[in-house]
Amino acid sequence: MIISSDCHAGATQAEYRDYLEASYRARYDSAMSDPDVIERRSVEVIGMRIPSSDANGESAPLTAQWNVERRLAQLDTDGVAAEVIFPQPAGRAAPPFYNIFGHPLDPRDPDAAAAGCRAYNRWLADFCANSPDPARHAGLALVGVVDDIDTTVAEIEWAKRAGLRGVILRSQPLSGYGWHEPRYEPIWSVCEDLAMPIHTHGGEGPELGNLPGSSSIFFTEVVWFAHRLFWFLLWSGALERHPRLRLVLTEQFADWIPDMLRRLDAQYEGTVSNITLTEGLTMKPSEYWARQCSVGASFMSRLECERRHEIGIENILWGSDFPHDEGTWPNTSDSLHNTFDGVPENELRAMLGENALDVYGFDREALMPHVGRVGPLVESFTSVSRSAPGSPRG
Amino acid sequence: MIISSDCHAGATQAEYRDYLEASYRARYDSAMSDPDVIERRSVEVIGMRIPSSDANGESAPLTAQWNVERRLAQLDTDGVAAEVIFPQPAGRAAPPFYNIFGHPLDPRDPDAAAAGCRAYNRWLADFCANSPDPARHAGLALVGVVDDIDTTVAEIEWAKRAGLRGVILRSQPLSGYGWHEPRYEPIWSVCEDLAMPIHTHGGEGPELGNLPGSSSIFFTEVVWFAHRLFWFLLWSGALERHPRLRLVLTEQFADWIPDMLRRLDAQYEGTVSNITLTEGLTMKPSEYWARQCSVGASFMSRLECERRHEIGIENILWGSDFPHDEGTWPNTSDSLHNTFDGVPENELRAMLGENALDVYGFDREALMPHVGRVGPLVESFTSVSRSAPGSPRG
Repeated sequence: MIISSDCHAGATQAEYRDYLEASYRARYDSAMSDPDVIERRSVEVIGMRIPSSDANGESAPLTAQWNVERRLAQLDTDGVAAEVIFPQPAGRAAPPFYNIFGHPLDPRDPDAAAAGCRAYNRWLADFCANSPDPARHAGLALVGVVDDIDTTVAEIEWAKRAGLRGVILRSQPLSGYGWHEPRYEPIWSVCEDLAMPIHTHGGEGPELGNLPGSSSIFFTEVVWFAHRLFWFLLWSGALERHPRLRLVLTEQFADWIPDMLRRLDAQYEGTVSNITLTEGLTMKPSEYWARQCSVGASFMSRLECERRHEIGIENILWGSDFPHDEGTWPNTSDSLHNTFDGVPENELRAMLGENALDVYGFDREALMPHVGRVGPLVESFTSVSRSAPGSPRG
Repeated sequence: MIISSDCHAGATQAEYRDYLEASYRARYDSAMSDPDVIERRSVEVIGMRIPSSDANGESAPLTAQWNVERRLAQLDTDGVAAEVIFPQPAGRAAPPFYNIFGHPLDPRDPDAAAAGCRAYNRWLADFCANSPDPARHAGLALVGVVDDIDTTVAEIEWAKRAGLRGVILRSQPLSGYGWHEPRYEPIWSVCEDLAMPIHTHGGEGPELGNLPGSSSIFFTEVVWFAHRLFWFLLWSGALERHPRLRLVLTEQFADWIPDMLRRLDAQYEGTVSNITLTEGLTMKPSEYWARQCSVGASFMSRLECERRHEIGIENILWGSDFPHDEGTWPNTSDSLHNTFDGVPENELRAMLGENALDVYGFDREALMPHVGRVGPLVESFTSVSRSAPGSPRG
């Protein structure tokens, strides 16, 4: 069973317009009057190639953003039984009033961005519910603006009722010091109570201008900013106070986790700098990670797989990043073999599907027919022995 | 021969006052009217215990900040032949108008901070020149304010003439997008031409308020911000255009370097995200690191030592962080054995002293009497075989 913990979807411009509250439609029309501006920004400034349309506006991956039948067909060819859905970070299918630098929202207009979130969430809930196979989709609500805590909590409650399976937060809130502020406590409470995992997704970074090196610096740094929520929730005590709260760090690599856990434990145990700041935690930081956190390991590498025991077999959710160019689609089978060949069956099953099944509450019975129809055979991995470094190629 | 690439010094309040330009003295008196505020800020808010005075204001490590005879005596007992001097980041001996959050300067008053830099640099140049053993000190000029490029270049030229051996920059400039901006090109040129290595030192991070978790989050993140100058200089092409420019990253750990070089090389080679943004570089990022960068590995750990070949034997400068509590002083001998026992002699000599000798242009002949007098015997390291993991303890 293969579940991708990282896929992206988005509506057409016309659909977003329908889902937007009426008072924001004129502003959206204005912002989208030159869609090439948004598209070019994502391609040239950032260097990220969002699936784009051909001359007829009908390229397969782009259409699969909003056409659920095409989407399911592409998941089938990729061997993927079920998916977790994040928004498009840029381009025409991104939520209204979003851009990649401000991912998930334009800080200059938080009210419009909040309306864009609501439109995206409502479109996504319908997209998943109206699918021929709703059990194959776990949509996540985008909660970009949190200044009004009551409104934020109400949006998360609405998302739960609407069938969405988790919450995506900015790497840091737009205003204030950061996610360690006590005023965010009601958000952690409602997410714990409703079993809505909290996510960050790689993509936010500081404004670097359009200078030589800007794009490359952005790519070097961007994953780090998405990591931060982990230690903000850790050191502020939110993971201690909310032991059933779950955090998922998606598309931000997994190689860094063992070293970071080692450092955090050393900091907790006071072996760095003679400083003891345990912040009231009753366990080592690595124990909170093991209990409450997961990494959405998009296009997971062989190196990351080799570190799987230090990251935690139970804490890894493989992801394809469909339909992005940097993802594994449409070569997922090759990518899986490169990363996982030779891994024991129980570990393979956990990382590729079982862990995501638990975190997102997928319906196993409803998925099994698709697993049997499209999924790879476990024997295809475990029967292949991959040569170790330095040994003759086998 | 042991050279510490990371020591800290600072003047007394009265000395700083004398070195400050007259127009800033009243402001300094006002800022220092309650020195306990600064001291408490460093101890309680940050959790970092700067050496503080006893009831008589005469504790040994504090006095060694400005009393060169006491300082040399403490280097002797530590087995250290020579040192590289950074300023105190906080407390009463920090340069005028500095605080730790804004390390190295208070962003609200850049003119005063620039004057504080000048006062510190002039005090430090005299401190080193007037030492009974000037060959044992390599002082670094603090260049915190760079908005006026001509003034900055002139200060670096002055520092070279005054005998200082390098330049300390903020992790990022106070204004603008960052160190990749082309307007900083004259700084890279003058530092290359005058063989003045550029440094960042761990200590700067974003303002996190005084909330539960703030201090711990600060400590978790603070080293990362100091790393950034490396990839800003790399991707903006500064290391390519200035092949003799040298960058030293001090007190910000060394364990992260192998993974970062692997990622940067993958980014350069386009194997991440299908994105090719080579930015006109003619070599892999790891090759610029090997040619032009060093890590000032303060209180280097056994784990970092085990990664020494991936970091680069020639790129590691051991440091004691004297006289900070988190440093190895006064237990440097034990710390060195814990980290380096069993390491081959040529690697040991490189990391503990020879590399720093080259980077900072220490006078070998002048140092040798001190090496013979205070330095540990190489046999004390290489004769001890440390048991490998899993093997019987030897």
